[in-house]
Parts: sequence; C-alpha cells; structure tokens
Amino acid sequence: MKVFIIGVGLIGGSFAIDIKAAFNEAEIYGVDISAQYLDKAMSLGFIDKKSSLDDIYKADVVIVAIPVDATVKILAEILNQVTDECLVFDVGSTKEKLCSSIRNHPKRRNYLAAHPIAGTEYSGPQAAIANLYRGKTNIICEVEKTAFKLQERGMEIFTRLGMRIRYMDPASHDKHIAYVSHLSHISSFMLGKTVIEKEKNERDIFDMAGSGFASTVRLAKSSPAMWTPIFKDNKKNVIETLEEYIANLTQFKELMKNDNFEKIHKEMEDTNHIKTILKGIV
Amino acid sequence: MKVFIIGVGLIGGSFAIDIKAAFNEAEIYGVDISAQYLDKAMSLGFIDKKSSLDDIYKADVVIVAIPVDATVKILAEILNQVTDECLVFDVGSTKEKLCSSIRNHPKRRNYLAAHPIAGTEYSGPQAAIANLYRGKTNIICEVEKTAFKLQERGMEIFTRLGMRIRYMDPASHDKHIAYVSHLSHISSFMLGKTVIEKEKNERDIFDMAGSGFASTVRLAKSSPAMWTPIFKDNKKNVIETLEEYIANLTQFKELMKNDNFEKIHKEMEDTNHIKTILKGIV
Repeated sequence: MKVFIIGVGLIGGSFAIDIKAAFNEAEIYGVDISAQYLDKAMSLGFIDKKSSLDDIYKADVVIVAIPVDATVKILAEILNQVTDECLVFDVGSTKEKLCSSIRNHPKRRNYLAAHPIAGTEYSGPQAAIANLYRGKTNIICEVEKTAFKLQERGMEIFTRLGMRIRYMDPASHDKHIAYVSHLSHISSFMLGKTVIEKEKNERDIFDMAGSGFASTVRLAKSSPAMWTPIFKDNKKNVIETLEEYIANLTQFKELMKNDNFEKIHKEMEDTNHIKTILKGIV
Repeated sequence: MKVFIIGVGLIGGSFAIDIKAAFNEAEIYGVDISAQYLDKAMSLGFIDKKSSLDDIYKADVVIVAIPVDATVKILAEILNQVTDECLVFDVGSTKEKLCSSIRNHPKRRNYLAAHPIAGTEYSGPQAAIANLYRGKTNIICEVEKTAFKLQERGMEIFTRLGMRIRYMDPASHDKHIAYVSHLSHISSFMLGKTVIEKEKNERDIFDMAGSGFASTVRLAKSSPAMWTPIFKDNKKNVIETLEEYIANLTQFKELMKNDNFEKIHKEMEDTNHIKTILKGIV
C-alpha cells in the first residue's frame, strides 16, 4: 500500500508513524513544499521516500494534511492525477467550502472528507507523535459521496489507528466546530495578547502565573499558518461565536460593575456543568 | 508545633498533608464551618483533631484557607485570640483589602500575607493532594510588617514544602494577579457558558470537542464559592483586565469582518511569544 502524505507536519507525520506501525505493507511517500521538512521527516524515519505531486498517480492512499486554503487549491488537481482505485482524504478543520469546491469533480467518489479531532499546540515534523489519533473522534462528512470500497479502506485505516467515527454534514460540522474548537483558539490567543501587552515591561511578572493560566493560554502557541486559513474559511461561523462570547464577557463585566455578585455566582455555578460534559474528553 | 488549619478544603488540606510529612512534631487541628468537611478531613487522615476558633489560643501556626471575604471577616478576631508567639498566615488570591483591614491591629506583627500560586480546578477535602506547593511561587506581601522570628517560621514551612518566594506590595499583587489568574478564570467560565448555551439542545456535539477545548475551559470547573469573593474583592483590577480582553477580542472580530487576515496572522504570530513565557510554568 503506497501512502502519500501531503504535508509532513504534526498531523501528516503522526498519520505516517501510526500507519507504518499498523500496516506492514505500507510505504510512506512524503510530499511537502518545504525541503527542510522533508529532510526532517526522512531523518525521523516516518517517511520512506521523498516524493512530489508528479508521482501521485502511484498512490493507493493520499492524505492531505496542509492548511485548509492550500487544500482547497490543490485537491481538484490531486483528484485529476490519482487512479480510480486511490483513496484521497484530507484532515482539515473546515469542510463546507472544500466539499463544495469538488462537488462536481469527475473523481468526487475518490475523496473522503475527514476531520480527526486531534492535535497538539506544536507543529512541524518534529511535533509528530505516535498514537495521536487513538481514542479520538474522526468526523466524516458526505460519506455517501465516496465510493464504497474506498470508504472501507479509509475505515480500515481509521479503525487500526483507534479512532471513533462520527458522520455529519459539512455545514453542521463547520458550525459546531467553530464553538468547540475555533473559538477556544481565539479566546486563548487574545488572553495571551492581553496579558503580554499589559506585562510587557515587567517580564518577571509571569512568575506569578500558575498552571491555570498555562492551561487557558496553551492554544496561543498554535501555528498561525494553520489557523489563519481556518478562521478565513469559517469566517461566518467564527464571527458568530465571537459575538456571543464577547456578549457573555460584557454581561459578566456589567454584573461586576453593578455589584451583582449573586448573579455572577449563579453564572459560574451553571457553567460548572462543564465538568460533566468534559468527562471523557481529556 | 500546633498548626490550626482554618478551612480544610483543597488549599488548607494540601498544606496539612505536606506539613505533616515535613514536620514530625506537627499536630494538625482542623477548623471548618462544615462538619461534613471536618469529618472527611479526619477520615482522610490529614487533620489530627477537629477543633474550633475557641481553641486557637493554643496555636503555634494558623493557616487561613477560606474564601477571601470570609478571611477579611475573621482575621482580626483570630489575631485577637492568638498568643504573641503565634504565626498567622492566609493564602488568599487578593491581598490589598485584607492587609488594609488589619493595618492598625495591635497584633499586625503576628500576620504574614501570603499567596501560594497553586491549586487545581477541584475543591473540598477530597481534592487535597500531596506536593501541591512543590516548585510553586509563593507571593509574600508587606513582609516587613511581620515579626522577624515569625517570618522565619513561615519561611521554614514554605521552604520545606518546596515553594519559591517572591515579595511584592499588596496593590501590585492584586493588579498583576488579575491578569495572570483572575482573567483566565473569567475567559474560561464565559467560554464554557457560550458553548453550553449554543449546544444545549445538541449535547452530543461535545463529541467534537478535543483536548484543546478541554484545556481552555478547564478553569470553568472552579468553585463559585471561592471565586465570587475574589472577583468582588478585586473588582477594579478585574474589570480593567476584562475591558482590555474584550477590546482585543472585538478588534480580532473586526479584522475578520474586514478580511484583514494578514493582520490576524501577525497578531497570532506575536502572541506565539507566549511559548517562551510559559516555559517553566507547567
């Protein structure tokens, strides 16, 4: 099984590591616009060969793990090049525009729209780790549009890597993921920004920061190259979540100004319900 | 050494566990308005005796680990009751009002204002853990107002528990801690609220949430009984941080609306600097 990984960073690299471990017969071909990333992926040993899009006609599986705007740009071209028996799936954090962009492609049946909810705040080949996907949810969109035997091949990979599968339409995916993922990243980035700005002349003030701050601001370490295209692609949904978040923060601030700490207590108590919701996520 | 712990929850209980381990001669007396908490603390074994404020004249050390508004209410009374040789310290997350409230107390020299930057999102005696304070920063305010030999006793405890000491005036403490701790809690609570509200009719949408969301929203599990008084006590500073945070979020939203994704990329890149800052915190 020849597996082409387009983008050998955290996400693509972690797929490479697990697929090599789970499929004896897998040969991993790495494709990346960064020659340095390819060298690193070779030296880390998770790709077997450096390759390019020109060779993609050889592929049995293509995994597209690059920023979502880049995926939109090259997915149709990849589909043009692959054989009828090749499965192409992407792993991007937005699905609606991408699915729409290849809706009428003659090889639409070769493509599976996937979004494994997995990652860390790090990026690049050196961030790739084994078992990143174990126990994680993989959201599949428009499964009915993928050829059945290619669905099966995809499921075989996802199952061996330990993922749980959920099916969803692309519009719902993009709407909900804006709340449970994209908004978290912005809240974290802006928290980091607010604190850095305030404390920029007093660096050692961060000695005062504890594990709570570190946890809340962790996502502010994430890659701007990956996240800018996601926010752009999911603009409408993300703006909606931001408006609601800002409204809730403003209401909290007003309650404080009005000394309505009884209501503030209740707000927090109600939100403690997140304990139940989070069980099983971490 | 008779140590009275006022409030046998996460913070007080964790002090009890470590002091018992570090001082052979320590006897731990537990005081709490909750009889249930005292029973739990006894059964967990981290207090040796249930006690009350009436017995506090026996104490060599008193640790006040209750919500900050309750501390303000009883600190003067505790100081009235203890002997001249007793060290009293609190561990609250705000310092200015508390220090001000006992500024002219005849036993001011018996009191040390402390704030160990340590904790978890859990509360109550069952949340108390060993080594909670190891490697953590303990901020001491107005150290010069505490009797020298009682400072020494405090430092002996903090050192044996593995804490690093920083000295700061109460006003600076309250201002900076609003940024690196209090704001994180509000951002997390309001993130939790925003997502819960949106998804309340679609509970299973949380299957889509990953470790990033869990990390960002972790502090929303925190105790409202502890945090409401902190926000109330540090109202002015917290409102200031909230205003800056909301302004940054609003600016981010406007950049999105105006399709200025170049600037958004730069904002995130600049904030990535948090990586360097966070090194050594977690």
